[in-house]
Amino acid sequence: MWNVNVFYGLSFLMAAIAFAYAAYLYLWVKKHKVENAKIDEVSKLIKEGANTFITREYKILAVFASIIAVIILVLLPKPIWQSAADGGFKEVLQNNIAIAIAYIAGTVLSAIAGKIGILVATLSNGRTAEGAKKGIKPAFLMGFRGGSVMGLLVVGCSLLGVAAVLWITKDAGILLGFSFGASSLALFAKAGGGIFTKTADVAADLTGKVELGIPEDDPRNPAVIADNVGDNVGDVAGMGADLFDSNVASMASALVLAQALTNTLFSGAAVKLIFCYAILGLLSSIIGIATGRIGKKGSPTKALNMCTYITTAIFLVLTAGATLLFSAMESGITEFAWRIWGCSAAGLIVGVIIGLATDYFTDDSKPIVKKCAKASASGPAFTILSGVSYGFISALPAMVGIAVSALISYNLLAPMGGTGYGVFGIAMAAIGMLSIVGMIISNDAYGPIVDNARGLAEMGGLGDDVIEIADELDSAGNTVKAVTKGFSIGAAGLTVISLLSAFMTEANAALAEAGKTLLSGFDIMDPIVFFGILIGAVIPAVFSAMLILGVDRNAQRMVKEIHRQFNDIPGVREGTTKPEYGECINIATSGSLRELIPAGLIAIIATVLVGFIGGPKAIGGFLLGNIVTGLLISLFMSNAGGLWDNSKKYVEAGNQGGKGSEAHKAAVIGDTVGDPFKDTAGPSINTLITVVSLVASLLAALFARFNLAMFL
Amino acid sequence: MWNVNVFYGLSFLMAAIAFAYAAYLYLWVKKHKVENAKIDEVSKLIKEGANTFITREYKILAVFASIIAVIILVLLPKPIWQSAADGGFKEVLQNNIAIAIAYIAGTVLSAIAGKIGILVATLSNGRTAEGAKKGIKPAFLMGFRGGSVMGLLVVGCSLLGVAAVLWITKDAGILLGFSFGASSLALFAKAGGGIFTKTADVAADLTGKVELGIPEDDPRNPAVIADNVGDNVGDVAGMGADLFDSNVASMASALVLAQALTNTLFSGAAVKLIFCYAILGLLSSIIGIATGRIGKKGSPTKALNMCTYITTAIFLVLTAGATLLFSAMESGITEFAWRIWGCSAAGLIVGVIIGLATDYFTDDSKPIVKKCAKASASGPAFTILSGVSYGFISALPAMVGIAVSALISYNLLAPMGGTGYGVFGIAMAAIGMLSIVGMIISNDAYGPIVDNARGLAEMGGLGDDVIEIADELDSAGNTVKAVTKGFSIGAAGLTVISLLSAFMTEANAALAEAGKTLLSGFDIMDPIVFFGILIGAVIPAVFSAMLILGVDRNAQRMVKEIHRQFNDIPGVREGTTKPEYGECINIATSGSLRELIPAGLIAIIATVLVGFIGGPKAIGGFLLGNIVTGLLISLFMSNAGGLWDNSKKYVEAGNQGGKGSEAHKAAVIGDTVGDPFKDTAGPSINTLITVVSLVASLLAALFARFNLAMFL
Repeated sequence: MWNVNVFYGLSFLMAAIAFAYAAYLYLWVKKHKVENAKIDEVSKLIKEGANTFITREYKILAVFASIIAVIILVLLPKPIWQSAADGGFKEVLQNNIAIAIAYIAGTVLSAIAGKIGILVATLSNGRTAEGAKKGIKPAFLMGFRGGSVMGLLVVGCSLLGVAAVLWITKDAGILLGFSFGASSLALFAKAGGGIFTKTADVAADLTGKVELGIPEDDPRNPAVIADNVGDNVGDVAGMGADLFDSNVASMASALVLAQALTNTLFSGAAVKLIFCYAILGLLSSIIGIATGRIGKKGSPTKALNMCTYITTAIFLVLTAGATLLFSAMESGITEFAWRIWGCSAAGLIVGVIIGLATDYFTDDSKPIVKKCAKASASGPAFTILSGVSYGFISALPAMVGIAVSALISYNLLAPMGGTGYGVFGIAMAAIGMLSIVGMIISNDAYGPIVDNARGLAEMGGLGDDVIEIADELDSAGNTVKAVTKGFSIGAAGLTVISLLSAFMTEANAALAEAGKTLLSGFDIMDPIVFFGILIGAVIPAVFSAMLILGVDRNAQRMVKEIHRQFNDIPGVREGTTKPEYGECINIATSGSLRELIPAGLIAIIATVLVGFIGGPKAIGGFLLGNIVTGLLISLFMSNAGGLWDNSKKYVEAGNQGGKGSEAHKAAVIGDTVGDPFKDTAGPSINTLITVVSLVASLLAALFARFNLAMFL
Repeated sequence: MWNVNVFYGLSFLMAAIAFAYAAYLYLWVKKHKVENAKIDEVSKLIKEGANTFITREYKILAVFASIIAVIILVLLPKPIWQSAADGGFKEVLQNNIAIAIAYIAGTVLSAIAGKIGILVATLSNGRTAEGAKKGIKPAFLMGFRGGSVMGLLVVGCSLLGVAAVLWITKDAGILLGFSFGASSLALFAKAGGGIFTKTADVAADLTGKVELGIPEDDPRNPAVIADNVGDNVGDVAGMGADLFDSNVASMASALVLAQALTNTLFSGAAVKLIFCYAILGLLSSIIGIATGRIGKKGSPTKALNMCTYITTAIFLVLTAGATLLFSAMESGITEFAWRIWGCSAAGLIVGVIIGLATDYFTDDSKPIVKKCAKASASGPAFTILSGVSYGFISALPAMVGIAVSALISYNLLAPMGGTGYGVFGIAMAAIGMLSIVGMIISNDAYGPIVDNARGLAEMGGLGDDVIEIADELDSAGNTVKAVTKGFSIGAAGLTVISLLSAFMTEANAALAEAGKTLLSGFDIMDPIVFFGILIGAVIPAVFSAMLILGVDRNAQRMVKEIHRQFNDIPGVREGTTKPEYGECINIATSGSLRELIPAGLIAIIATVLVGFIGGPKAIGGFLLGNIVTGLLISLFMSNAGGLWDNSKKYVEAGNQGGKGSEAHKAAVIGDTVGDPFKDTAGPSINTLITVVSLVASLLAALFARFNLAMFL
C-alpha cells in the first residue's frame, strides 16, 4: 500500500489542477469584452461595492481572529499554566501554537477563496448580460463558468489546507483549529453577507417598487447597486465560505475519528481513503463543470442539474474503482473499504434525495408552488399560512433522509469494530454528501451572476428579449439554489454528529488526565444532558430571529438614507442626477456587521455558559439540541422562502390574475417575508451549528476540568 | 401514618366539594335572567351549535375509543396469545381488561366535564352581556364564575378518576390507560375544536369584515354564530380537555414512578403526598376562585392575575403545612417530604415565570407589542417578520425555565436514592406546576364567555358603553389566555420527561421477560436513538402544519357556503332574512373532524413505525425529539399569535394611525396568520406530545419484542 504521503502529494496536485482550471476559466471569462458602456460602468460599481464590504469585513475579522488566536494560544486545548504545573509546558505550548496557526490558516484560505470568487463573479455578470444579446447559450456558459471559478477555488483551498495541516502536524486534532478558522469566517461571510444582501433587497423594494412604483433594478434607486452587490457577497462569498466550512469540518471530523480507530491497519487506510475521496470528488466536479453546456433552446435548470448528476455518477464510479485498487494493494482492508464506499454512496444518494424533495416544494412546475399561489388569491395571510405550513412539512423528507443515512452508514461500519467505527461511517456519509461540493458551489455561484446580469441588462437598456433570456437564467438559479441549501444543511447535520463524537473524544482525554470518570455517551434521561438539550434547542431559533430583526433594523436605516437622497439631492428622484450609491453600500456593510455580532455572541456565550454550568455532559445535549432544531428551522426557512419566491414568480407569469392582481400583492408580501428566511437566517444556521460544535470541541478540556455540575 | 385509603377518601371528598361548589356557581349563574330577547335568542343558538359539535364529536370519539379499547383488550400491554403461550392467560386478560376499562373511563370523565363546562359557558355569555349593562363589576363576576365551573369540574373529575382507578386496581400502570383515554379525548377536543373555531373565525372575517365591510359579530353574517360557538368548543371544551389530560398524565406518571421507588417507606409516602398535593391544589383553587372579585373601576386583568397569585401562595403554604404534618407523623420521611415540597415549589415558580415571560411578549402595555405594531407601519411583511422573530425569542425563557426546573428537581430528589428518585422529582415539579390548574382553567374559560358576551352585546344592540365594558373584559381574557398556554406547555414538557421514564420502565419489564438486555438509558450517540430523535423532531412541525392547512381548507368551504347564502337566499345580504346559521356550524363541525384525523394518524403511525423499526431505543429518541421541537413550536406559535392579536388591538386603540390605517391593515393580516397559530396548532401540540408518549408507553412491550433493529 502506498504511503500516506502519496495522498498528501496527490491532494496538492489535485488542488493545483483545480487552481489551473480555475485560472483558465477566469482568463476565458476575462477575454470576453463588455461593449455597453452603461453595463461596464455599473458592473464596476458593483465590483467596488463588493470590495468595500469584503475589505471591511476582513478587517473586522482580522481583529476578531487575532483575539481568538491569542485565546487559543493561552487556553486551548489546555491552559498554559495548567500544563506548566503538569510539567509538560513545552509540548502544551507547541500544541497551542499549532492550533492557533491552523486557525489563522483556516480563515485566510477561506478569505482568499471568497475574495477571488467575488472578483470573478463581478467580472462575469456584465459579460453574461452581453452574452444574452447573442442568445441563451453563450450567456449560460458565461454565468456558469464564472461561478465555477468559485467552486474550484473553494474545494481546492480546502483540500490543500487540510492536507497541508495534516502533513505538517500528523495530528488531526490540530485540524479542528483549522476548521474553526473556516467556520469563523463562514459565520461572518454567510450571516453578515446574508444581512447585507437582504437589507439592500428589502430597502430597494420598499422604496422603489412600493413607494415610487419603479421597476426592480431601476438606476434611479440609490439602493440598486447595494442590492446587486448583496447578491455577490451573500450568495457567492457567503455560500462559498459556508461550504468551505462544511467541507473542512466534515474532513476534519472524519480524520479525527479515523486516527482514533483501534485497528491500525484500518486507521491508516481510513485516512488515505478520506483524501482519496476528496481528490476524486474534486476530479468529478472538474469533469462535471467541463461538461456544463446548454443547447440553443435548452433549459438552464436541466443543464445545471445534468452537471450535478454527471458529477455524482462519475464520483460513484471513480470511488468504486479506487476501492478496487485499495483492495488489490492491501487485501486485509477489502471489506472495510467497500463498507466505506457504501457509507459515502448512502450520504451522496440521500443528498440527491434531499435536493429532489427541496425541488418538489419550491419548483414552480410542481403542485406546492401552485397551491401557495392559489392561497394568495384569498389574501396575504393565506400566502403566509400556506408557506409556513409547507415549509414545515418540507423538513420531513430531509430529516428522515439524514436519520436513515446516519443509521445505514453507522451500521455499515460498526460491525468492523464497534461504536467508533460506526460514527466514522457517519462521518464518511457526510464526506460522500459533500464530495460533489465543487459542482454544488459552481451551480450556486451561477445564481447571483445571472441575477446581476438581469439587472445589468435592464440598466444597460438591452431590451425585452435580452431581459427575458436573463430572466430564464435567473429562475434556474433560484431553483438550483434551493437544492444547494438542502445539500449543505444535510451535510451539516451529518458532520455535526461526527463533531459530537469528536467532542466526546476530546472531553474524555481531558477527563482521563484529570482522573475523572469518562463519558460513555450522553443519556437523554440524565437531567444534565436534558438541560443542555433544551437550551441548545432554543439557540438556533433565537439566533435566526436576531438575524431577521437585524435585517429589519438595517433596512429601516437604508430606507431613511434613500428618502434623504430623494428629498435632499435634486434630480435623484427624476433620474437626472446619479444617486450616491456608495452611501447605501456603507449602510449595508456597517449595519450587517453590527447586527451580526450580538447574534453570534449569544450563541457562543450560551455554549460557554452551558459548558461551565453543566460540564461536558450538558454540552453533549446542547450540541444535539442545536442540531435538531437547527436542521428543522433552517430547512423550514430555506424552503418556505424558496416557495414564496417562486410562487410570486408563478403569479407574475400570469397565473391567479398575474401582475398587479390581489394575488400578486399577497405573493409579493410572502416573498418579502421569505427573503430574510431563505437568504439570511435559514442558511446561516448550519454555520452556527458548526461554529458552536467547534467551540465546544476546543473548550472540551476546560469544560471537563471546571464546571458547576461537579458539585452536584 | 394514615393508610393510603384515607387519601383516596379525602380525594373523593375534595372532588365532591369541588362539584358542590361548581353546582352552587352554576345555580348562581342560572338565577340571573336574560332580559334582552335578541341576546336570549342568539345565546340559545350558540348553545345549540356547541351541542351539535360536541354531540357529533363524541359520537365519532365513541367509535374511535371503542376500536382503541378492543385493541387494548387484545394487545396491550401484552398480546393475549403471547401470554397464553406463557401460561398466564387469566392475569394478562384481567390486566388488559382493566386498562381498557380505565381507558374508557378516562374518555368519559373528560367528556362529561367538557359537556357541562360548555353548558355553563353558553349559559353565562348572555348573562355577562346583561351584567355589562350594570357595569364591569357584575359582568366580570358572571364571566369569571361561569368559567370557574369548568375549572372545578375538570380538576374534580381528574382527581376522582385517578383516585378511583388506583383505589380499585392498586396498580399505577393501569392509570396510563386512564391517562391515554383523557389524551384521546383531548386530541379531538383541542385540535378538532381548534380547527372548528378558527375555520369559523377566518371565514367570518374574510366574508364579513373584508368583503362586505360589516363589523365583527354582525348578525347578517351566516358564520357569526359558528364563530361564537367556536370560542366555546375551542377554548372551553378544548382547553379544559387539554388540561384534564395534562393533569391526569402528570399524576399518572408521578404515581408510576412513586410505586417504582426502591425504598418502600418512601414509595408509600410518595403516593400519599401526590394525592395530598392534588387535594390541596384543588382546595387552593377553590379559595382563589371564591376570592375572585373586581372593584367598580378595577382592571379585570389584574383581578384574574391576583386570583392566580393568591392560589399560588395558598398552595405553597398549605403544602408546607402538610409536609410538617407528614414529618410529625412519620419522622423517617421528613427530609424526603421537604425535598418533594421543594420540587413542587420549583415547578410552580417556574410556571409563574413562564407566565410572566409570555405576558412580556404578548401584553400590549409592554414594548414587544409596540415594536410589532410599529413594524406594521412598514407593511404586512414586517408585521410577520417581527412576530415570527419575537415568537422564536419568546421560547427562550420558557425553555430555560423548564430546563432549570427539571435540573433542580432532579437534583433535589436524586440524593435520596438515585436516578429513579431524581426522575420522580421532575414528575413532582410537573405536579407543582399543574397544582393550580383549577384556577388556570377558570381564568381560561372566562375568555370565551366574555368574548361571546361582547358579540351578544353587539347583536343585542346594547350600545357603545356596554360594548366598551365587554371589550375591556375580552382584552383581559386574551392576555390571561396567553399565560394559561405557557403554563400548560411548560407542564406538558415536564410531564413528558416523566412519561419517558415510565416508557423505559415498561420497556424494561418486557425486555426482562423476553430475556433481553435492559435499557439503561437513551444515548444520543447511539444511531438508533439519533434516528428516533430526528424523526420525532419533525413530527410536531408536520402535525401543526397539517392542522393549519386543515383550517385553511375548511375556511374555504365555509366561505363558499356564505357566498351561496348571500347569493341564493334573498334578504340575507341585506339583513331582512335570517341566515342559515346551522349550515355554517355543520361545515365547521364535519370539516374539523375530517381535517383532524389525518394529522393525528400521521403522528400515531410515525410512532408505531419508529417503534417497530428501531425498537424501544428509537422510541426513546423519538419522544425526546417530539418534546424538544414540540415545546419550541408550540411556544413560538402561541406567543407569536398572541403578539399579533394584541398588536392589532394596540393599533385599533389609536396607535400607528389607528383603525383603517395601513398599519392596521398589516396588523389585521398578522392577526389572521396568528389565529390558527395560537388557537389551533400551538396549543394542540402538547396534546400531541402526550398522546404520542402514552401510545409509546402502552406499546412498549410490543416494541421491545418485535422490531427490525433486533436484526442489526
